[in-house]
Amino acid sequence: MLFGIAIFPEKHVQDLANSWRRRHDPHYCLIPAHMTVREEEEWTDEQLQLAVEHLEKITSAFPPFSVHFNRVSSFYPVNNVLYLALKETAAMQKLHGDVCSGPLTNGTSKYVYTPHLTIGQNMSAEELHDQYGNLRMQTFDITSRLDRIHLLYQTDNGSWTAYQTFLLRG
Amino acid sequence: MLFGIAIFPEKHVQDLANSWRRRHDPHYCLIPAHMTVREEEEWTDEQLQLAVEHLEKITSAFPPFSVHFNRVSSFYPVNNVLYLALKETAAMQKLHGDVCSGPLTNGTSKYVYTPHLTIGQNMSAEELHDQYGNLRMQTFDITSRLDRIHLLYQTDNGSWTAYQTFLLRG
Repeated sequence: MLFGIAIFPEKHVQDLANSWRRRHDPHYCLIPAHMTVREEEEWTDEQLQLAVEHLEKITSAFPPFSVHFNRVSSFYPVNNVLYLALKETAAMQKLHGDVCSGPLTNGTSKYVYTPHLTIGQNMSAEELHDQYGNLRMQTFDITSRLDRIHLLYQTDNGSWTAYQTFLLRG
Repeated sequence: MLFGIAIFPEKHVQDLANSWRRRHDPHYCLIPAHMTVREEEEWTDEQLQLAVEHLEKITSAFPPFSVHFNRVSSFYPVNNVLYLALKETAAMQKLHGDVCSGPLTNGTSKYVYTPHLTIGQNMSAEELHDQYGNLRMQTFDITSRLDRIHLLYQTDNGSWTAYQTFLLRG
């Protein structure tokens, strides 16, 4: 099965993100507003078992933290994605690094890890520039406490189901 | 916030349910295929805290179990719902009873608890009878091991996000 690891920001952040996702994100129906911690990967039952043990271990030593979304940014022209960006990315980078270690060490990923909350993707260049033009000059001041990560799996229809929560309890 | 408690059957059951849900369940986009354990309810932060403690406690003493879906049934005419029904409901009834005790004791619920996996709802009478006519004579033989429950919350768009998993570890 395909497994991925994500963090859901608090509801008020999801509600804001969904106001854009509804129209600009084809994954709107497949998964709630989230920040990816580790990209999807096909795992066997044995790999799942090892991953769960690993996640139990690293989250036991990782303290809850807060993030501050302060602007909208884009991965254009690499990807036609708009996202809510973080003022400080160090804690998310550290979390990503800890998750993607041991049995979950990444292979050669295509991208440098950039923590982000997608609000639009697979956009036409015109749609992206329209929205980005509107949003890039705005300052956002939205915080969320993050105290758990979620291991999810994908069903055949493309949507994601929660498999297990791991509380950050360091 | 609105919180509910659900159990997700294994992926092969979700995939089967989704083949009907896609066309006949308007909640298809809002939540993965699931069995409700406790209906949604508005909770304060204090109630959430008490609920989490309660769920930790009761799941620590509840053993994993298997369910056997053997037919399609309906709540018609009370509700225009089609669902995958269980051969034996005792374990799910017991789980529901344990969850809905202590701080999560139900008020006066409108319905008797009937464990079910919805595959269609809000159907027109014609649509329901069409589908039910096709499916009621079929025998199903689908099992799923259930070893965890999920506490979920609803965002403003109506969709559900996983808040916390509780493993059945009795």
